[in-house]
Amino acid sequence: MRTIWSLLIIGLLLNAIQMPCFAASEETSRPLRLMPWPTSLKTGSGQLAIDTSFSVGIKTPGDAHLQKAVSIFLDDLRRHTGMLPLDFAITDPAKAQLVVSAEHPSKPVQELGEDESYMIEITLSGATLNAPTTLGVMRGLQTFLQLVEITPKGFAAPAVSIQDRPRFPWRGLMIDSSRHFFPVNVIKRNLDGMAAVKMNVLHWHLSEYQGFRVESRRFPKLYEMGSDGLYYTQDQLREVIGYARDRGIRIVPEFDMPGHSTSWFVGYPDLASGPGPYSIERRWGIFDPAMDPTRESTYKFLDVFIGEMAALFPDQFFHVGGDEVNGKQWDANPKIQEFMRAHGLKNNADLQAYFNQRLQKIVAKHGKTMEGWDEILRPDLPKSIVIQSWRGPQSLADAARQGYRGLLSSGYYLDLMSPASQHYQVDPFADGAANLSDAEKQRVLGGEACMWAEWVSPENIDSRIWPRTAAIAERLWSPLNTTDLASMYERMDGISDWLDAYGLTHNTNYDLMLKRLAGSDNVSTLRTLANVVEPVKGYSREALATTEPTSLMPLNRLVDVAHPESAEARRFSALVNAFVSARIKPGTEAQIRAMLMKWRDNDGKLRPLIEKSSLLQEVAPLSQDLSSFGSAGLQALDYLASGEKAPEDWKNQQLSLVQQAFRPKAQLLLMVADPVQKLIQASAGETPTDLPIPKNAAQ
Amino acid sequence: MRTIWSLLIIGLLLNAIQMPCFAASEETSRPLRLMPWPTSLKTGSGQLAIDTSFSVGIKTPGDAHLQKAVSIFLDDLRRHTGMLPLDFAITDPAKAQLVVSAEHPSKPVQELGEDESYMIEITLSGATLNAPTTLGVMRGLQTFLQLVEITPKGFAAPAVSIQDRPRFPWRGLMIDSSRHFFPVNVIKRNLDGMAAVKMNVLHWHLSEYQGFRVESRRFPKLYEMGSDGLYYTQDQLREVIGYARDRGIRIVPEFDMPGHSTSWFVGYPDLASGPGPYSIERRWGIFDPAMDPTRESTYKFLDVFIGEMAALFPDQFFHVGGDEVNGKQWDANPKIQEFMRAHGLKNNADLQAYFNQRLQKIVAKHGKTMEGWDEILRPDLPKSIVIQSWRGPQSLADAARQGYRGLLSSGYYLDLMSPASQHYQVDPFADGAANLSDAEKQRVLGGEACMWAEWVSPENIDSRIWPRTAAIAERLWSPLNTTDLASMYERMDGISDWLDAYGLTHNTNYDLMLKRLAGSDNVSTLRTLANVVEPVKGYSREALATTEPTSLMPLNRLVDVAHPESAEARRFSALVNAFVSARIKPGTEAQIRAMLMKWRDNDGKLRPLIEKSSLLQEVAPLSQDLSSFGSAGLQALDYLASGEKAPEDWKNQQLSLVQQAFRPKAQLLLMVADPVQKLIQASAGETPTDLPIPKNAAQ
Repeated sequence: MRTIWSLLIIGLLLNAIQMPCFAASEETSRPLRLMPWPTSLKTGSGQLAIDTSFSVGIKTPGDAHLQKAVSIFLDDLRRHTGMLPLDFAITDPAKAQLVVSAEHPSKPVQELGEDESYMIEITLSGATLNAPTTLGVMRGLQTFLQLVEITPKGFAAPAVSIQDRPRFPWRGLMIDSSRHFFPVNVIKRNLDGMAAVKMNVLHWHLSEYQGFRVESRRFPKLYEMGSDGLYYTQDQLREVIGYARDRGIRIVPEFDMPGHSTSWFVGYPDLASGPGPYSIERRWGIFDPAMDPTRESTYKFLDVFIGEMAALFPDQFFHVGGDEVNGKQWDANPKIQEFMRAHGLKNNADLQAYFNQRLQKIVAKHGKTMEGWDEILRPDLPKSIVIQSWRGPQSLADAARQGYRGLLSSGYYLDLMSPASQHYQVDPFADGAANLSDAEKQRVLGGEACMWAEWVSPENIDSRIWPRTAAIAERLWSPLNTTDLASMYERMDGISDWLDAYGLTHNTNYDLMLKRLAGSDNVSTLRTLANVVEPVKGYSREALATTEPTSLMPLNRLVDVAHPESAEARRFSALVNAFVSARIKPGTEAQIRAMLMKWRDNDGKLRPLIEKSSLLQEVAPLSQDLSSFGSAGLQALDYLASGEKAPEDWKNQQLSLVQQAFRPKAQLLLMVADPVQKLIQASAGETPTDLPIPKNAAQ
Repeated sequence: MRTIWSLLIIGLLLNAIQMPCFAASEETSRPLRLMPWPTSLKTGSGQLAIDTSFSVGIKTPGDAHLQKAVSIFLDDLRRHTGMLPLDFAITDPAKAQLVVSAEHPSKPVQELGEDESYMIEITLSGATLNAPTTLGVMRGLQTFLQLVEITPKGFAAPAVSIQDRPRFPWRGLMIDSSRHFFPVNVIKRNLDGMAAVKMNVLHWHLSEYQGFRVESRRFPKLYEMGSDGLYYTQDQLREVIGYARDRGIRIVPEFDMPGHSTSWFVGYPDLASGPGPYSIERRWGIFDPAMDPTRESTYKFLDVFIGEMAALFPDQFFHVGGDEVNGKQWDANPKIQEFMRAHGLKNNADLQAYFNQRLQKIVAKHGKTMEGWDEILRPDLPKSIVIQSWRGPQSLADAARQGYRGLLSSGYYLDLMSPASQHYQVDPFADGAANLSDAEKQRVLGGEACMWAEWVSPENIDSRIWPRTAAIAERLWSPLNTTDLASMYERMDGISDWLDAYGLTHNTNYDLMLKRLAGSDNVSTLRTLANVVEPVKGYSREALATTEPTSLMPLNRLVDVAHPESAEARRFSALVNAFVSARIKPGTEAQIRAMLMKWRDNDGKLRPLIEKSSLLQEVAPLSQDLSSFGSAGLQALDYLASGEKAPEDWKNQQLSLVQQAFRPKAQLLLMVADPVQKLIQASAGETPTDLPIPKNAAQ
């Protein structure tokens, strides 16, 4: 993982040289902070001033949805400029600085594939935003918002001409509210974040082994006994759906079945394939309980339940999960075995396919289109269903060839703690999908970032979703050739701060959590360490756990605070790569030296904090490693400066120290190990090398 | 102002030497972070562990209010320890680590003067919290919460024995939601902050020249025409009142009359004393419109209106404002003049007293006790009314002598940007009140911090209220002899971070606003400047404005971001005072030198940001001043180190530079001017002096 990291950094630097620069604002010479990057952009000359009297005119009256979108836009513009509710206005288009128009209103219930394109024209004297639909206006308003910047003459939007449309019609974020529960305010602020980067689907994972999160009036024991009191009322759900709708976001509910369903069985044990009683699962993993697909009562229940949910969630799509049924309860149940024999079902996959056929008919009866994970794909299901691929691009391509529509989520799992660059390079048309025919490609609807919730709480979920999801959003919206990593990172850093205005806590909770770890206000030394570590990647956290993790376990360790991707390690790697490859700018060595000195001296200062906090004791070895890296790096720099080659035994000793420090500690990785290794190698006259890519790097 | 500041710092250091240290935790040797400091505290040995299985038992069952208080407490404990909803529980008292009991439930509607005392006993094996009332338990739970800290063995509360009771029964915060509007979430998070420091009254200023903020069903044009759409619905108000009630906080509404009432007249011009039409006032200041006290229709209106509001707001007290009637509309209205002659009313004060007598009868008719500002005090009103003193402790004492109950707000005006130390030293029993008899002292109910809202928005209001209000809360709760400024500041810094957990934004919005000012993520140099400036004090901001300020003016300048009190300047002053008085610790000079060097070098680095942002241009001279101070201070240190006395002409030149920099720029004060002056004086062999205290320092 660390190695792929370094390769990316080198790639990044090469890209920065090879690729043309992105457009920059004339007034401030700052690059435009647009994300996703638009399909086509031409910069003009000058800028449109945005002062307190700024106003928007709506050319297509009577579209309440458009009116609401403009009023949300003005609120957002106030947040980003620090203006007040009495500033800005909606006025007569003849007098407005920005005139918006939609040729047609969007559908009353937002549909897959509605036109989201738009055109923006900004000049010195005014701006227009035109789109075929209200949805397109919404996307364009986000672009306009991102264009507004402070200049020497006040807030302004630069003169530009933009034509923009999404590459894929389905650009989603999945939030798992079941393994941990996220209150409505958490969901709302993430919807704001999604809208800012033009995502259009919240896929809401609402039931699991560990919790059933929706109020059902028909089957109240689902939430009464299956949620620990942590569920959404129907009023709250309607509120969130409306909030999303106002931002051009569909909400697709997922009720995972027949597996991942223990919480249903606490109140309704007869649904299960094994004998009860059941209790809410506290562990993580894959468990045996599964619905009984052989009883008619199961389908009667689901018919009523899905009917209720179909009325509550207006979206066309209804996600039935369908993943990871281990079949053990089915194997152990003689009645189920008998049923399989009687119906010629050869194995559990056949039995699940039978279940899915029945389920699909129920979903269709209630007017919905069924969606599910990879496992539901069987040729006996109608071609209308949608397959969400978590197993890889190949299964997505297979589905498309068989005539099924699909979404890519493999490669977009946020819980695996991969760097944004890695997600950014995953494309729904890569690998297996590259050779699809045009008609088959049409069936690839897009993708979804997935926030599985074993290791996230309301306090740190935003920091796992943002800003990395912005890179995925760009992959799914922007043209295929938008691949410049340096530009992506620069703009992502900007968007990360931009999102703070919506109350997202990915930045603001960092210090709060560090202060709690330290039991002190003075966390500068702890921050120095936290800034260069990352949580272990892939599923290593489960593998490295010393006691079995459960949903009762507090998420208040440094691994829960550290960002999935260390910006400081990224910068340090870039500096070192430039330095060892002699593509050095003035000041590079001094910057490297300053960072190394800070790390070398940090352990001594951090130690008193560590000693006072049980939560920090586990990070003591990491802190020592960081100090050692500082010293080793500085020694390497001294050798390089002196022109004297570092002695072989010193080099070997340092490299073995680095190798040792590559190993996770406290479920964290010290992300400066790799560049320090490069410095050591360079000081010994060797060509710096990367380690082989670890097995889980492709996740 | 700067000078009183330095005196305080010296006082602070002296106090730290003279006063006994406050109790510290045995496990971590950190001082206990309790605020307000309790009446009596004895530390024991060892600590009570707080792990995921921590539970609370309630000995007095059937008290729903107590049950709710404990459940809020557990939520708060989860926030502060990073634990999850499934951690902690309410259990059988026989099995619980913390057992709480209230001898009596609190009153269904919280009343002034209910017993808020409590006793806490924490040992190695368990803890008890006993109180005469549920309210006392609530206060004790906040103390318990503040005792929990991270230790080498996990989260724990130290063994202590606490007996605690408030000094005053009315400890309030006034929020003006009228000059600017604050949405419900802003009010709620501030209620959390109030509860954390044991305040018990939110005085809500709900009508003004600039806005009428409450839905009235009887007179809908009040909010429809008088609020710009920015008002609280009755449902929202009930929600907030319940939220406050659950935290032991009363809500006293204020509808200011007969002045400060332009917004009423937009919809109901007949209420006014001058001819309409009226529009919502956009400027700040004192304006002419006032209700017509001579018409019966005015009292009919108020009878119906107060009846509606009395039903909506359950508290016993009803605040009628009554301040700052300039009488111009009365003077100009012949009918009113005729009425005054006919009724023997000699002047406008007599007319307002007539109005207040009528008003008091209406308020009493609806079962409420009238409260008002200083101006309503006239011997012809019944002794039941409560006087809120904004003019000074003398008027409070006068009221008490005349048999009226009163509250102190003079000295607690948060909008005047005074340091916490200054508020902390204001006591309701100081000055005029010191000689009151015991019976008269009983009439002094307490005080209220006041957040007037000319210069605050939802974005920065928390930073004006917190953490300084914690010092006022301590003054009103803790024993009279709790006066150690060093201890207060140390604990206030701790509480400031503590409050972050409730979503208060006084810390978290700082960087967000700086980034917007800079139009950049990289704000370290801007932060260096922002950290050592403070907004001008008293009413200087109005006085220094170059264009007439209005409610449409964005609050997005550095003066709106800078904290009312610079912690860095406070620390620097303390270092310099120690240094020049030779009470020097190892490292003091090095610390001073490092800070001066950072400031000296800052202007050059900040300049490029300033040049790109119209909002920053006004701070360029401040940035230059800070650099000059850095250079001057460093030169002074060099003279002191060399033993050579600084030359007279250098000294005079530097002092005149400092004098010049004392003047506000961009409505900001550079708070390191005074200590730098001391360094210069010391380097020339002079005794460092303070400037005379400026006129507005006592505000």
